[in-house]
Formats: sequence, C-alpha cells, structure tokens
Amino acid sequence: MRAIQLAAFGLDHLQQVDLPAPRPGPNEVLVRIEAASLNFRDWMLVDGQLYRGVSLPIVPVSDGAGTVLEVGAAVTRFKPGDRVTTFYKSRWIAGAMRPEWEGAEIGGPEPGVMRELACFDQYSLARAPAHLSSVQAATLPIAALTAWQVLETAHITTGQSVLLLGTGGVSLFALQFARLRGARAIVLSSSDDKLERAKALGADVGINYAKYPQWGALVREASGGAGVDAVVETVGAATLAQSLEAVRMHGFIGVLGWLGGMEATLPLAKVVLRRVRLQGISVASLEEHERMVAAIEATGLAPVIDRVYGFGQLREAFERLTAGGHFGKLAVDFSA
Amino acid sequence: MRAIQLAAFGLDHLQQVDLPAPRPGPNEVLVRIEAASLNFRDWMLVDGQLYRGVSLPIVPVSDGAGTVLEVGAAVTRFKPGDRVTTFYKSRWIAGAMRPEWEGAEIGGPEPGVMRELACFDQYSLARAPAHLSSVQAATLPIAALTAWQVLETAHITTGQSVLLLGTGGVSLFALQFARLRGARAIVLSSSDDKLERAKALGADVGINYAKYPQWGALVREASGGAGVDAVVETVGAATLAQSLEAVRMHGFIGVLGWLGGMEATLPLAKVVLRRVRLQGISVASLEEHERMVAAIEATGLAPVIDRVYGFGQLREAFERLTAGGHFGKLAVDFSA
Amino acid sequence: MRAIQLAAFGLDHLQQVDLPAPRPGPNEVLVRIEAASLNFRDWMLVDGQLYRGVSLPIVPVSDGAGTVLEVGAAVTRFKPGDRVTTFYKSRWIAGAMRPEWEGAEIGGPEPGVMRELACFDQYSLARAPAHLSSVQAATLPIAALTAWQVLETAHITTGQSVLLLGTGGVSLFALQFARLRGARAIVLSSSDDKLERAKALGADVGINYAKYPQWGALVREASGGAGVDAVVETVGAATLAQSLEAVRMHGFIGVLGWLGGMEATLPLAKVVLRRVRLQGISVASLEEHERMVAAIEATGLAPVIDRVYGFGQLREAFERLTAGGHFGKLAVDFSA
Amino acid sequence: MRAIQLAAFGLDHLQQVDLPAPRPGPNEVLVRIEAASLNFRDWMLVDGQLYRGVSLPIVPVSDGAGTVLEVGAAVTRFKPGDRVTTFYKSRWIAGAMRPEWEGAEIGGPEPGVMRELACFDQYSLARAPAHLSSVQAATLPIAALTAWQVLETAHITTGQSVLLLGTGGVSLFALQFARLRGARAIVLSSSDDKLERAKALGADVGINYAKYPQWGALVREASGGAGVDAVVETVGAATLAQSLEAVRMHGFIGVLGWLGGMEATLPLAKVVLRRVRLQGISVASLEEHERMVAAIEATGLAPVIDRVYGFGQLREAFERLTAGGHFGKLAVDFSA
Repeated sequence: MRAIQLAAFGLDHLQQVDLPAPRPGPNEVLVRIEAASLNFRDWMLVDGQLYRGVSLPIVPVSDGAGTVLEVGAAVTRFKPGDRVTTFYKSRWIAGAMRPEWEGAEIGGPEPGVMRELACFDQYSLARAPAHLSSVQAATLPIAALTAWQVLETAHITTGQSVLLLGTGGVSLFALQFARLRGARAIVLSSSDDKLERAKALGADVGINYAKYPQWGALVREASGGAGVDAVVETVGAATLAQSLEAVRMHGFIGVLGWLGGMEATLPLAKVVLRRVRLQGISVASLEEHERMVAAIEATGLAPVIDRVYGFGQLREAFERLTAGGHFGKLAVDFSA
Repeated sequence: MRAIQLAAFGLDHLQQVDLPAPRPGPNEVLVRIEAASLNFRDWMLVDGQLYRGVSLPIVPVSDGAGTVLEVGAAVTRFKPGDRVTTFYKSRWIAGAMRPEWEGAEIGGPEPGVMRELACFDQYSLARAPAHLSSVQAATLPIAALTAWQVLETAHITTGQSVLLLGTGGVSLFALQFARLRGARAIVLSSSDDKLERAKALGADVGINYAKYPQWGALVREASGGAGVDAVVETVGAATLAQSLEAVRMHGFIGVLGWLGGMEATLPLAKVVLRRVRLQGISVASLEEHERMVAAIEATGLAPVIDRVYGFGQLREAFERLTAGGHFGKLAVDFSA
Repeated sequence: MRAIQLAAFGLDHLQQVDLPAPRPGPNEVLVRIEAASLNFRDWMLVDGQLYRGVSLPIVPVSDGAGTVLEVGAAVTRFKPGDRVTTFYKSRWIAGAMRPEWEGAEIGGPEPGVMRELACFDQYSLARAPAHLSSVQAATLPIAALTAWQVLETAHITTGQSVLLLGTGGVSLFALQFARLRGARAIVLSSSDDKLERAKALGADVGINYAKYPQWGALVREASGGAGVDAVVETVGAATLAQSLEAVRMHGFIGVLGWLGGMEATLPLAKVVLRRVRLQGISVASLEEHERMVAAIEATGLAPVIDRVYGFGQLREAFERLTAGGHFGKLAVDFSA
Repeated sequence: MRAIQLAAFGLDHLQQVDLPAPRPGPNEVLVRIEAASLNFRDWMLVDGQLYRGVSLPIVPVSDGAGTVLEVGAAVTRFKPGDRVTTFYKSRWIAGAMRPEWEGAEIGGPEPGVMRELACFDQYSLARAPAHLSSVQAATLPIAALTAWQVLETAHITTGQSVLLLGTGGVSLFALQFARLRGARAIVLSSSDDKLERAKALGADVGINYAKYPQWGALVREASGGAGVDAVVETVGAATLAQSLEAVRMHGFIGVLGWLGGMEATLPLAKVVLRRVRLQGISVASLEEHERMVAAIEATGLAPVIDRVYGFGQLREAFERLTAGGHFGKLAVDFSA
C-alpha cells in the first residue's frame, strides 16, 4: 500500500513509500484511509519541534477518515463498511486525561494517517457523521473537537456571544458551533474579504484587527457593552491583552495555542477584578468527540474546507498551512 | 384606574373595580400595565387552592407587561419609557431561593397585574425583549422561564434531544428553546392536529399518546435507541413511569407540575440503575430571567399565543385554561 | 485452587470446588485474592433475582482484595506485589456509563471473587489503600464508592449536613466521608445502641426512627430548621416521603436502593416547590474510585466491619446479611 | 462618636475625628463596631492607588465586626443584640457580580468601618460565627471569603492537595479550610520558623522558597508526582511560572492578587497541554459568605491573628501590613 513517510525532519524529507498491509489484532479495526486533514501539530512533527518523543521514519498527520474493512474478534464498536475518523488522542476514552495515556497520539509518536491501510484500537476511532464525505469527516478530529470543547466548557448557550480570532479551522468550527447553539459570533481578521465570508457563515460582527489594533473595546461594544461570554484564544501572545479587554465579567477565555509566541503577558488585576477564567484546552476525550458527532449529524453541519490536495501533494498542503491565510481546513483526498 | 379583584374564591367573584393610582417609593417603578397572561397558578389562586397565605380581596394574575411611567429616586435599572415585564418571584434576584424571599410572589400573596397602574420594586421587574409587543412579553415570566430553566439545568446542547409532554405554554417554550440550542424536540399530544402544529414550530417527532399509551419505548426509539437527554415533566402522576422509560442513562427529568395528580409512583430500580436525575423546578431567579431575555432578543423568538382576551374577559380566559386543549399561552390585552 | 461456586440459585447451592489456576493475557493481571466483602447485590445473585443474564455455575461475590502475582506484557498499571481491589463495574473507566459496558460486572454475569486466583483486565482493578489490610480493602469497591459518589455529586462540603438512613455499609461510609469533608452527619436507626456507636464514629445527631416515625421534621430541626443538604436514600419506598421532609430547599436526595420495596410514592408538589434533586446513583467510574482511594489514604480512614467470616463460612455471612442488623460491612477472610 | 478619617492620601493623613451618630433608614441596621481587620486593599485606599473613585475625607478599612443596636422597620434579617460582620461588596447578594453593584464597596468608595457606630443595608451585613469574638470575626470578610471561594470554585475535596504561597491572611485561611475538607496543604515561606508554625496549623509539607527557587518541581514531588489540585496564587508575577510547574494536569490556579507586580508572564504551551484553569477570584457573594460562616461555626475554626492593635494604632497596623512578614491577620480592637 501507498504511504508517506518522514525520513528526517524537514519538508524535503517527506517521501512516498510502499508498506506492507497490516492485519488487525483482536481489539483492532482495519481501516481503508480515504482522506486526511492538516493541523498545525502536523507541521510541528515535520519541522522537528514536536514536544513528544518521535522516532523516524514515521507516517505523519493525525487526522484521517475512511471505511472499516475488517474487525478483530473482540471488537464491538464497529463492523465492516462503517465509516470512521481517527481519534488522535488514541487512549483518552472519557474523564480526565491520565498520565499513562498522555503520549498516545496518532501522527506522532504513534504512526499517522498518510497510509492507505491502518489498524487502530476500536477506541482510537469514532463514527463519522453519516452526511459527510471522507474528506469532510477527516477535518473533524482535532480542530472541530477543540472548538466544541471550548464552547462546551464555557457552557455557551442561546443569547450569549463568542469571539473568534481569525478564520482558521478551529475558529470557523467555533463560529459554526456557536451559531448552532443560538449564540452570536464576532470574528476578527485582517482581511475584509474573509470577514465577509465569515458573515456568510453566520458571523454577526466582523472586525478588521489590522485597522483596529485596540479591537478589545470594539468587541465589548459589539456585545452590548458588557463584553463577550467566551473568547476562542488561538493566538496567545499577541492577543491575550485585548482578549481580556473583550471578555465580560466572569467571562471565559479558552487558551488553545501559541501561534503568536510561546509566552504571553498577563495583566493580573484585570484577571482578578473581572474574575476571568483562562482555561487551557487541548482537544477532549472520545466521549466528547461522540457528543460532537451527534451534534454535527443532527444539524447537518458542513465543515469549511479551504482547499483539497491529492495524496502526492502533502508538501504543497504544508506550504499553504505555514503560509497562513487559509479560510477553514486544508484536506488531502487519497483518491485524487 | 381599572382593576380586577377577587372578592371571594371562585370565578364568580372576579369583579372590575376602580382603584386609586399608586405612587412609587424610592426603590420603586410605576408601570402602566398593558397586558397579562395566565398560568395554572392563577387558577389555583382564584379557586382557593393556592398554598400561600392570601388575603382577599386581591388583584389576581402573576404575569404582566407594560411601560415604565415614573421611577423612584434610588432606581438605577429603569427609566420612563422602558418596556418591562413583571418578575413573579419578586425578591429572588440570584443564587438559591432564600427562606426570607419565598412567600414574595406577584399575583398572590402580593397583588397581581390585573390593574392598569402598579408600582414594583426595581428588582421585581425585567426588561421586555425589544421585538415583542406587550401581549407577547406578558407570556414570558413564569412559563418561558420555567422551560428555560429545565434546559439550562440539564445543560441541553446541540445534538441532544428533549421530550415535551403536551402543547401548553411551558412545553412550547421548551420546544422553541430546544430548537434554538440545536437540540431535537419530541412532542406528545392526544391530537394529531396539534402534533402537526408542533412540527411546524420545529418539533422533529410527534407522538399521539392516546394511540400509544406505552409511548416511552417509542420515544426511546425515536432518539436513536438510547433515550432522550431530558424530559420536561409537566404532568407527573400519569406520565412519570413512561418518562423514565423514555429518558437515557444519566438522563434528566425536570419535574415541574402535578397536573395529573399530587402523587406519582416512582419505580426505584429504574432511577438507580439508569442513574436518572429528577429535578424539581419552579421558575428561577431574575438573573436567569435576564439571560433568557437576552436569548429571546438575540434569536427573535416569538411566543406561541393560543388566544388573546380583552380586559373584561378574564373569566372566559380562565374557562379556556381549565378546559385544557390550548396550544400555547392565553393572554389578556388591556387595550382590547 | 479453592473456589466457591453457585451451582443453582439458593443458599443451599453454594459449594466449594477446586478450579484450575488461570493464566493472565497480555492486558491482564493475575491476583491472589485474600478477602471479599458482601453487598446486597451478591444476595440477589445467589437468590436468583439479579436483573442481569447469569449462567450457572458461577463464582459469586463482586468485591475482593488481594496481591498481584503476575502481569501480562501490555500491563502498565500494576506490577507483582501491588495490593489491589477489584473494581466491580469492570469496564467503566471514566465519564458516563456506556451501553457497551453496562453488563460487565464482576460477581455476575462475570465471575466473582470467591476464588484464590483470578485474572482481571488491568482497568478492572484499583490500587488498595496502603494502610488497609486486604480484609479492610475488600469492603470498599461497591459500598464505599456508592457513598463517596453521593457526597461528590451533591458537592457536600464543610458546614453542610447529611442524613443517613441506617447503619449498613453504605451509610457508615457516607458518615465517615461526610465527617472528613467537615460536614455534619445525622443518623437514623431503630436501635439506640447503634445510634451510640454511630456517634462514636462522629455522627452529630442520632434519631431512633422507631420511636419517631415522623422523623423528617426532627431532622429538619436538627439541621437548623432549613433541612439537610443531602440524604443518602438507601431504603426508598418506606422513607422517601420523610426524606423529602428532611431535605432543604434545593437539596439533594441520592437514590441508591430499594430495600423497602420496588416502588415509592413521590409527593410532586414538594419536589417542585422545594426544587429538590433526586439523583439515582449506582457506584461510579474507576476514575472516581481512584479519587476515593486517594482520599482514604490521605485521611487514614478505616472501614467499619461488622464481622469477618472464613472462606468456608459464606453461607453464614449471607444469613447475617439478609437478617439485617449489621453495623457496617460483612467480610470474608480467605486465610481464616 | 470616635472615627478615623483619611483627609488626604498617605499614612500621615489618618486622623481621629468626632462624627455625629447615624440613624438607620427602613432597610438599615445600626451597628456598634467593635473591631476591624486590615487587608491590602485598605492600604491601597490610604496610599491613593485604589482603582475606584473615592472622595476624601473618607473613613477607611473594609472589614469590621460588632453588635446590632437598632434595626429599621423593613429589616427582617437582624435584630438588636445580633453579632455581625460587614460584607464589603455591599450589594452582591448572590449569583454573578452585576455592573450596577460593582462600585459598591465598604471602605472605599463607601465609608469604611473605623467608626464606632455605622448604618448598613441589611444585605451589607452577615451574621458573625457564634463562637468568635468581634476581633476574630472582623478578620473574616475579605480574606476568609477569598480563600473559601478558591477551594469552593476548585471543588477541593478529601484527598486532594492545595498549595499556599506564604503565610498571610488569605493563605492561612486557605490552609485551614483545606484541612477541614480533608485535603492536604503544602505551604511556601522564606522563613523556616513560619513553616513550622504552618505545620502546627495542619500543613502537611513546608517548603522554603528562598532556599529552593525552583520549588515547582518540589511541590509536584510532594504531591505524589502528579502535582497539586489547586494553587492559591496570592503573588502573581514572581510565582506564576513555578505555580504552573506545581499544578496537576486539569489543575486549578486561583489568581487572587498582584503583590509581586501587575503583570505576569504566562507560558502558553504549559497552560494548553496541561489543560490548566486560571481563575480570577475577588471575594464572592453574600450567599457564599453565609455558607462559609456555617462552615466556620460547624467546625469551630479560629482565625489566625498576627497582632491586635488599639483604635488609635491604625498607623502602626498599616506599617506592619506593608512591611510584610506577618503570620495571619492584623486586627484592630476598638476597646483597646
């Protein structure tokens, strides 16, 4: 079967190889992988910055989708023909993350999804929403679940408001989930064109942060003066101070990433006196993933995909990811 | 000013009288009441069954809406011209109900809203949603807040499912709120016509309980086999056993009323082994009411009103209330 | 190795047999079982009333403790020499119970602990508290975890009060856990002698329910007039009405059992107007069990054991269990 | 009556004056103030750094205790002879802080407690624990409630562990409350003597941060390797990085102050990957205060008081406060 391997760190070392087809163990499921999608984490693996112990060569990329071909004797959750996605935190079934599960991650240190056939433990897979293609389903595991978990942890409900920093995959999923809960969405971008596209997706307010670097006050005004109920903080260092301006008393800031640098400056008095909650979030358990899939199915949500690449175009996909500027997810279609 | 008083218990003793116009104290707001709506509690007052100490004559009816005419010197929440509704639990600002606040209820033992002018403490009023008429806003306080509080306490979110027993005011508000959260709604009625109307409002499934007295199993099937996430239990004695059939493992039953009798039979093993939560709910605090108003405004929700009566038709309105069979709320328009 | 088997339903059909020693699979742990304890559920198995599909003969009894002898190649949680207890809901690692895990229960339908050697999946075992003997540790899994889960779900904290119905295993664990949280404990019994023993364990108030059948009002009085924060409802049919008298506004009733009959009468108005939560509870996940073990270790809690029987005295132990009147747990010491 | 007024900012401008005795309005309570205690906020008022609009002269100090002398006609919560403390956030009865309540604070901008007689709204006072003197009770409102709220928001329970940064008032209350919940307490100080005193109060572990500036790893080790469940972060800028080292996966950091500077550096990857919650906390509502008083009464907790000053020694008390090094609270006894 075809696979992509990373032989050494760096984009130049992604190479297509031919690997033997795997056979499922008793608790395992053999999946024909049909699509993948990229997350920033995948770039960190390729670039050599991943904080986990990884041994090369490795099949990269965490998120994939496909069809069950065969199941081991002890498998109860799936049967041949079922459509599935991977679940990247491959041991985290429910409850709190346990130390013994922490390193178990598909796409480094465990092998990733850029291979046509793969075996996974039955709890490392989730049912794909019935109305989505494999390319669409492959965009869910990390980005959609992270967005879902922010809204869920913040208990976002009808009539509340959520702030999204940009139009990457996590932000747009958060926009869609917020609207489905009856909440208002305020989106930041440096591109008026992207703000228009976000509004077409349901955003109530768009603010061009390049024009208004003190956007915190504008967001507060746009949410009735009190501030937003939750911020989906995907950037960090460059934005946290304004996010704290934008959030209401007792509000919630989901801290998801460090795209803008590893360290942020935290204005303590504002955190204390406004009783803000800053909550680190990094995906969630399979139990939450399954609740999200039920929500996606019940509402017919369609992921926003910026561009779809062929199996042989992984390098081009990574180049667009690191260049920034995409609107939604970058996907790989194994049949293209 | 015109008012309706209950001189003795019984529908025959509702009489229109002329009362002197009140003047607001320093913390009070003078309101021109423009509309009212009926709840079963209002009937209990008129009928003499209300469990609170009530002295006659009394102005009946708990829920009203109108316009602020004048405010006392210490009032900070409202100004003349503001449109408001009453808040029936007139002392319950936030947090848990306190014993010292328990008896404070507009519409018995405190005077009700069937009068053209009334003074209320500024925390016994809430802002009316801007897009609603006074007749529409008057339907909110008890029924909408009770429905809101069930979904809020049950943390109902996108992709979940809610069961509604009938098509009265609370059930239809719950249906609307469930849909706004992206949840599915399953409605029971003994009338196929009402089930159709409920579907037009967004209900996903309608079940005629007269045809299927063992509807619990049908509801479970209609929610993917696992059972609904929450039941809005407005009936009680006649329905609780089937509600327990219908609800999922770890599910939620909001216990709201006793229309079907004061005592229900509780099958203990089912409650224990399926880890069901039965939660008594009776409205909520002003803080929750304000969150609900924000949700109603943000989504443009329009209450479902069965019929509107004139100020002089309160008796007719009560007769329809006790006859049952209404679809949504019964309102009184003071200008009609 | 020695084992006890139930060949047919009924106490007369418990028989000692000799079974071959098992060998651990890759995810399994071989345990030398050194002690067991009895729960009412064990009696239901023996008596044939258990609601699960059970095939005979079966080794009975759910709760045991012992020492790890050997571990499979994939086992990461334990090593030889570790002291462990069983975890009766053998698949429920964390989060909500899943349908696919529901029937997996040690002591029926899965084999129980009355055997000297047994293999368990590594997630079907929990570390035993270091300061407890195997006989003591064997009393924990079902009874202590159920008591823990009530207090945890009710968020019982310092200064609150808890009502316990009787002096069986669950009630006494709840008493001990309540005291460790700084909460007050009120205990009911029909024996003044047992009430004294409960006070020696830390109970603040003891009420003889045989003398005061309307004990609800007494409990309310003993908790400052407002009512207790939580009731550990181990009885059900005979007590629920009084429990509702005893609990405060917004209070919590943990519904755990049906010792007093399968059906209780529920006074609806009281549930609604006092906004009571009735929460069905049946043990909890391994994650909660581990938090409980940490609590037991940190505080040095010693389980209350009514009587210890030898391996050959299981019948006598069951006779005392069904006779009632025990104060705390009944245990079996395999070395006696 | 005697009072202390701040005529201009600075310690030199505290002066004793004679003010007329006040008379209670209908919702007010006349209190004979018998004691006060100092918080860092009081120093910010005197020093002119308080972030609220304050007009001079003003009676300083937020926390006091005394005896009710007289009540207004509408007062239901208190009667003459009741012993009370002030409740500094004088409008925050329950639920979330509301914008309209935010500025209402006893001790600036509202008058403080350094006067022998004062009138307060009945919801600006709380019952004092029966077993405490007025000097002891005066130490509660800000410091104890802040400590209580951290443990309550973090749901700290038996078997968990809490880290305290230093031995000031908030830290020692947190230590006492943690022990009452059955949790372990780890205390930092730069003084071995104070660490010994903290252990005498129940601390399980003491760490001298002057000797071990990388104390995060030591704390983690002292809590079984996983890290503490909660940190009571009273310092901020100088400690946050180590606090993040010390806290467990999914752990809680209560952000309470900025003694070490207005801005802290936040290492984002650690917050995200360990899913830490940083929660700004600044006292809590009266509802929480009353729950805390119930807990203090039920357990007989005695506040730790570093030193008691006379009414005329307020300047000396402030000098000790700003010098640092106190162990527990600084109080003022009006009868001394």
